[in-house]
Amino acid sequence: MRYLPLSRQTPVPSDLDIAFAQQPKLVDELAREMGLEPHEWEPHGRHKAKLLLPLLNKQGTDGHYVLVTGVNPTPLGEGKSTTSVGLCQALGAHLGRNAIACLRQPSQGPTFGIKGGAAGGGYAQVIPMDDLNLHLTGDMHAVTAANNLLAAQLDARILHEATQQDAALFGRLVTPRQGAKCFSESQRRRLARLGLPVDANPEDLTAEQAARFARLDVDVNSITWNRVMDTNDRFLRRITIGQGPAESKATRQTQFDITPASEVMAVLALAKDLEDLRDRLRAIVVASDRQGNPVTADDLGAAGAMLVLLKDAACPTLLQTLEGTPVLIHCGPFANIAHGNSSVIADRMALKLVGPNGYVVTEGGFGADNGMEKFVDIKCRASGLSPSAVVIVATVRALKVHGGGPLISLGAPLPAQYRSEDVSLVRSGFCNLARHIENAAKLGLPAVVAINAFSTDTAAELELVREMSVAAGAQGAVVCRHWELGGEGAVDLARAVEEACAKPRPQLRFSYDLSLSIESKLEAVARTIYGARCVELSALAKTQAERFERQGYGKMAVCIAKTPLSLSHDPKLLGSPRDFVLPVRELRLSAGAGFVYALAGDVTTMPGLPTRPALMDIDLDVVTGRPIGLF
Amino acid sequence: MRYLPLSRQTPVPSDLDIAFAQQPKLVDELAREMGLEPHEWEPHGRHKAKLLLPLLNKQGTDGHYVLVTGVNPTPLGEGKSTTSVGLCQALGAHLGRNAIACLRQPSQGPTFGIKGGAAGGGYAQVIPMDDLNLHLTGDMHAVTAANNLLAAQLDARILHEATQQDAALFGRLVTPRQGAKCFSESQRRRLARLGLPVDANPEDLTAEQAARFARLDVDVNSITWNRVMDTNDRFLRRITIGQGPAESKATRQTQFDITPASEVMAVLALAKDLEDLRDRLRAIVVASDRQGNPVTADDLGAAGAMLVLLKDAACPTLLQTLEGTPVLIHCGPFANIAHGNSSVIADRMALKLVGPNGYVVTEGGFGADNGMEKFVDIKCRASGLSPSAVVIVATVRALKVHGGGPLISLGAPLPAQYRSEDVSLVRSGFCNLARHIENAAKLGLPAVVAINAFSTDTAAELELVREMSVAAGAQGAVVCRHWELGGEGAVDLARAVEEACAKPRPQLRFSYDLSLSIESKLEAVARTIYGARCVELSALAKTQAERFERQGYGKMAVCIAKTPLSLSHDPKLLGSPRDFVLPVRELRLSAGAGFVYALAGDVTTMPGLPTRPALMDIDLDVVTGRPIGLF
Repeated sequence: MRYLPLSRQTPVPSDLDIAFAQQPKLVDELAREMGLEPHEWEPHGRHKAKLLLPLLNKQGTDGHYVLVTGVNPTPLGEGKSTTSVGLCQALGAHLGRNAIACLRQPSQGPTFGIKGGAAGGGYAQVIPMDDLNLHLTGDMHAVTAANNLLAAQLDARILHEATQQDAALFGRLVTPRQGAKCFSESQRRRLARLGLPVDANPEDLTAEQAARFARLDVDVNSITWNRVMDTNDRFLRRITIGQGPAESKATRQTQFDITPASEVMAVLALAKDLEDLRDRLRAIVVASDRQGNPVTADDLGAAGAMLVLLKDAACPTLLQTLEGTPVLIHCGPFANIAHGNSSVIADRMALKLVGPNGYVVTEGGFGADNGMEKFVDIKCRASGLSPSAVVIVATVRALKVHGGGPLISLGAPLPAQYRSEDVSLVRSGFCNLARHIENAAKLGLPAVVAINAFSTDTAAELELVREMSVAAGAQGAVVCRHWELGGEGAVDLARAVEEACAKPRPQLRFSYDLSLSIESKLEAVARTIYGARCVELSALAKTQAERFERQGYGKMAVCIAKTPLSLSHDPKLLGSPRDFVLPVRELRLSAGAGFVYALAGDVTTMPGLPTRPALMDIDLDVVTGRPIGLF
Repeated sequence: MRYLPLSRQTPVPSDLDIAFAQQPKLVDELAREMGLEPHEWEPHGRHKAKLLLPLLNKQGTDGHYVLVTGVNPTPLGEGKSTTSVGLCQALGAHLGRNAIACLRQPSQGPTFGIKGGAAGGGYAQVIPMDDLNLHLTGDMHAVTAANNLLAAQLDARILHEATQQDAALFGRLVTPRQGAKCFSESQRRRLARLGLPVDANPEDLTAEQAARFARLDVDVNSITWNRVMDTNDRFLRRITIGQGPAESKATRQTQFDITPASEVMAVLALAKDLEDLRDRLRAIVVASDRQGNPVTADDLGAAGAMLVLLKDAACPTLLQTLEGTPVLIHCGPFANIAHGNSSVIADRMALKLVGPNGYVVTEGGFGADNGMEKFVDIKCRASGLSPSAVVIVATVRALKVHGGGPLISLGAPLPAQYRSEDVSLVRSGFCNLARHIENAAKLGLPAVVAINAFSTDTAAELELVREMSVAAGAQGAVVCRHWELGGEGAVDLARAVEEACAKPRPQLRFSYDLSLSIESKLEAVARTIYGARCVELSALAKTQAERFERQGYGKMAVCIAKTPLSLSHDPKLLGSPRDFVLPVRELRLSAGAGFVYALAGDVTTMPGLPTRPALMDIDLDVVTGRPIGLF
């Protein structure tokens, strides 16, 4: 593999300037270097490619699987993506290992809202960074289209049921093919779910059976399926639809979420292959009927069309780091109402591609309490894959916050404590990192601490974190400077990760068994990982838990939506909170994704635009064709 | 160029079966055959490519430019796209000419709504047809994103203005860069429009000037910018947005349109190059302020970000016909509220690529009264290009309808008159075709009539149309069977087109001069092309015409939105209506596209889903990865 030399500058220029200063390899060269066969990939432009699904059948032994996670972050973020990218640059360009970073696709909403890339930063970036932060290869748009097709079909069906008699409705739904009326595949599956004969002739159904088949009888108040858009559009947070004269029988309130919040995104991220994707799409529950039974995407006959819309989005996108090592970008589910990890398909492909001595580095959203727990309990459970080690990213800045330093907010100047040495503040805040090291051990994962150094950190502060980490049980703890130096700045981290992975692969332990009740599973995560005394379900949440168990969804995983800033649900409880009560306000079902999610905090599923959004500074140089002002 | 042989079957299989039975050439081969240099194109998958903007600077003489249009169609369509594709297959694969078809991208909405392809049909198709009818290379999604970013920014700005004092608003809008506060590029353009000093320091503005700068002061009732989605979602036809607690100061009613109805689509289709695209985006008017001045995308600071979102969508997509000749797919604006033609950029590139002896075949939406008129008056005026000939597609079926035959509707069985010979019905309906031949002559365009033959047409019927066409002034009139036979079935048409193009290039004549008043321009189209006695503007439309003229938009082109089924505004006035009064209910401005559009009929800008939409029969074969049931 040809690695790309960095021509580093001091001070470190803007992310966009660094990205444009590097000439990426042609994707043909990268694909050749990775040993990809022509039927295993296809180019998308000169510097992007799609890896194709036949790669899932590649034979061989998997490489080492490394999760990058972090302490509970400040609102500024502590550099997990940057570390994932820097680590791969170090493993590849500096140690000559096969290493692939598997990362989430950023949403376009925030790109144009508040500045902030999701491609690493400094000299540890994914390029071409403008493609990554814009449409990339269209996966995000495909998720939007699949989500919204289901929404349109749901509302249209409710309207058609409201305006047609049973016989007319049945007659329109079951149409002739080659002359005779017959049931389609999805209609036969519905017949089976209803306990009706699947091989029946449409004419043989009784009027009652035909009506039962034709009427989904959606309880409009139970609809949980929202429309989505990959734009920060706060005016769509609560809307009334169907106010046209022809739809007035079914006017209702609903909302748009941003695309990463779509269950379709979680489904795509968790699917093992095309068949699994198809089954998960069919299983999506959009509402209950008036008898309390789930109404699925398959009942609406929409899962096949959604699958067709997602057929290319099921393939990960190949990009590269600034130093020319491969990166797979695939899916970007929310880290609160969903599991916040990139896709199973990308990880499966990457593990085969790097081979038994190689490394696949992936990332969990938010802090380790969210990201690592969901990676293990949701993603690894779905994929059957097991990580060799976990990297916990910590910063002196974040530990100072956990130690009681003044709060940090986006856009405001950084208080003095964060710009000068304060060893005792670091020492008091270390408890947060210690908890994540401990949690990793509970899950059976060897932890390596990556101390992401900033120019304001002092040697004493960094050394303290290193020492305390090892004392707390980390397999390694190293200071990293990949933002400033690229892969060279993460070579020690790479060596520590290699060491951790060289030991016998640990036995992964889940936080809970799927056979427990929903409430017990929530309690297991809250106690084991968060350090809560117990969970407290609201009356609503209790009713919902009962309903989901009655409907047959009791054996799903659980996914807790809470703040990333604290181990608890309360962003003000910094450091190492214990023995709090985790309140669960509401439960929702993501039956296709395979989990019940619990709201233990406020979750905004549609961001807004500030008075001067980033979009006001973004433009295109019409001569070079290059974006200006993107980050 | 290697042409692909067809293995034709009888009866003609489904479009999807025909498409999948053909193995397209690798796009690398096609690009090489077309003489494309590496910097002029990039692959998107193995069978699609983007042609890049440097191609616009290619030197050389343009080829012949041929417009395919048609008689006023029946609701079933008369085969314009099929003819465009068949003609190129004939010119290329059978006559060995350089020929490129430039076609519109179909919307995904109808694909999943009511079956119907937009890629030709039978043995005259564009392949891969599943890609064409799905996301293709993401242009449609980019248009959606750009449109909706502007919408989000508009509503967010209204809210921020409603909740902030002048000084705070100004302070947030004009932010420091490298320490000192300064105006951005788009803010300087706004200063210039307001007559304020463009080089002013932000601190030097008086409070009154600062307020005038910061407050767009949008008159909410004047907003004309809708959100869009490329899904048939009738519940979004009329909605109330901003019902969340934080947005309640700016709750309002609005609507979603389907993406091809976005002005961004028309803008992209009419832009000559990136600079023109930038200027058109800036000029988009979204509302008036409370003083009646236009509020533009540039006032909102959104045009640059929209341009960045559209940078790849500005490049046409290269596909091929079933016989391996090149096709450019680019843009798909509505044919009523917009001009209904594929892009200027694709045509410009294609004309250079085919060279002086080659042919570029493009298409106008709806009948020639809409499609040909707008092609000439809007698209050719914007591009400066001039066609060599026009092909008018006619069917015996449509002429019978114009002759007084029973009405035809989608999905209903075809009445007997259309399945057996009725020469006199054809003779009475010919008047419709005659009018379009006459109109072509008025615009200075030599017309060739393509009689698209169906199996139910008789020799006598077809011959009658041929004879009458020549008698009515057509340069040629030939029977075509490309649906059944591919290019071989359109060889006579290709020869007739060659003959028409071999004559000296005619002088294009517009229907009106831009310097006329809006009302006079509408009247010119209505009288010259439609045969109306006059136009009658509603009181509202008159007020709007005055406003647009006062705002400086009086010299724009006009675009009349009316039914395709009749030369008039009334779908029931078939044949050759004359001397009717064309009522114009309302005018709207597409300042970026460069036209004022007039509503002379009901226009649905958001289709719906029927009780059993096409999506219910669409699925993916998870083994082959191929769609099933698409058309």
